[in-house]
Amino acid sequence: MSENYESLLGLQDNTVLLQRISTRLADKYTGIFAAETVERYVFESYTALARTARITTFLPATTEHFASDRLTALAISKGALASEVPEVLFVCVQNAGRSQMAAALLAVESRGRIHVRSAGSLPAADLDSTVVAAMSEMGLDLSRNYPKPLTDDVVRAADVVITMGCGDSCPIYPGKRYEDWDLPDPAGQNLETVRDIRDRIHDRVKTLVHSLS
Amino acid sequence: MSENYESLLGLQDNTVLLQRISTRLADKYTGIFAAETVERYVFESYTALARTARITTFLPATTEHFASDRLTALAISKGALASEVPEVLFVCVQNAGRSQMAAALLAVESRGRIHVRSAGSLPAADLDSTVVAAMSEMGLDLSRNYPKPLTDDVVRAADVVITMGCGDSCPIYPGKRYEDWDLPDPAGQNLETVRDIRDRIHDRVKTLVHSLS
Repeated sequence: MSENYESLLGLQDNTVLLQRISTRLADKYTGIFAAETVERYVFESYTALARTARITTFLPATTEHFASDRLTALAISKGALASEVPEVLFVCVQNAGRSQMAAALLAVESRGRIHVRSAGSLPAADLDSTVVAAMSEMGLDLSRNYPKPLTDDVVRAADVVITMGCGDSCPIYPGKRYEDWDLPDPAGQNLETVRDIRDRIHDRVKTLVHSLS
Repeated sequence: MSENYESLLGLQDNTVLLQRISTRLADKYTGIFAAETVERYVFESYTALARTARITTFLPATTEHFASDRLTALAISKGALASEVPEVLFVCVQNAGRSQMAAALLAVESRGRIHVRSAGSLPAADLDSTVVAAMSEMGLDLSRNYPKPLTDDVVRAADVVITMGCGDSCPIYPGKRYEDWDLPDPAGQNLETVRDIRDRIHDRVKTLVHSLS
């Protein structure tokens, strides 16, 4: 029963691969996190991405990236790693359009003087292809980005949290700056409309960079 | 900025409450999990539920229940807690209908001789009200249940994983029995149709209980 079902759905047992990733990240975070914590982060990050991803071929590589970024965020929030620059988090519903554009534009506009993350309250399977096209026109390649669920660690690490259309799905912690940007959802829109949303995000991002400088 | 935004959206800082829950659960799992692991479970469980829940009033209580259940599942999978009975996990997309009905029916039919959990690949905000009504006709109260995201720990703890309509979003681990039940989605259906789905699930659950006895 088990074997048939797995091969039928093309499912794989990635346990060995995930354990190897856990060992690698446990080394990286020695003295900061227990190996138990790191292993939990790797396996739960994998399951969270697997739940919503459409293509699962690159999941182990994506898992390593996501788990490592989350552990870094947690280490910063605990003061175990120093962050020399402001940390900004963009949150939208799907992490497929608005928050991805905002993160990419902020990285460019701040020239590395601000560190940025993005996440979604209900992450989509893929980035919106029109969004990828509109950003590509500016020379920004989002094709390797992936939608990520909002997690506690990235909220904790942020100095500024900017939500776009996801209501009250983001936990509130003291000492942070919260903003809600009222911008249309690019999902299902044509390229012209998405360009307009992109440019409106770009304007707001410039103002934000200015206010954080 | 921060204060206005919080009061505008009715958002609360639940940090103190979540830390109290972490302390309580760390006591409960002393010698099994480090306090660091327990705290991460509590805060990430909270964020995962907050992302999808519509009503956030009971979130801290729900978080304690969910985090504790996940830690128990993880302890069982690691052999740190003994499970005397088979563990069954039902997974559907929203954890709002099929998997909730199946879990409730299995608990009744097995009379406690099987332990059951349920989860969703994309959890809904609430249980389906028609599903709650159809189960209520049988004297089974699902009104206090809540949709939960699929997590690694509950898959690990399971001896049998049964998926219903959620494709390959469930990680595969060796040594488990996997089944996919092909049943219609009760979402948006009328009471009569939901009763029919309920009864079809009930039949399959009886067969499952028989096969595990």
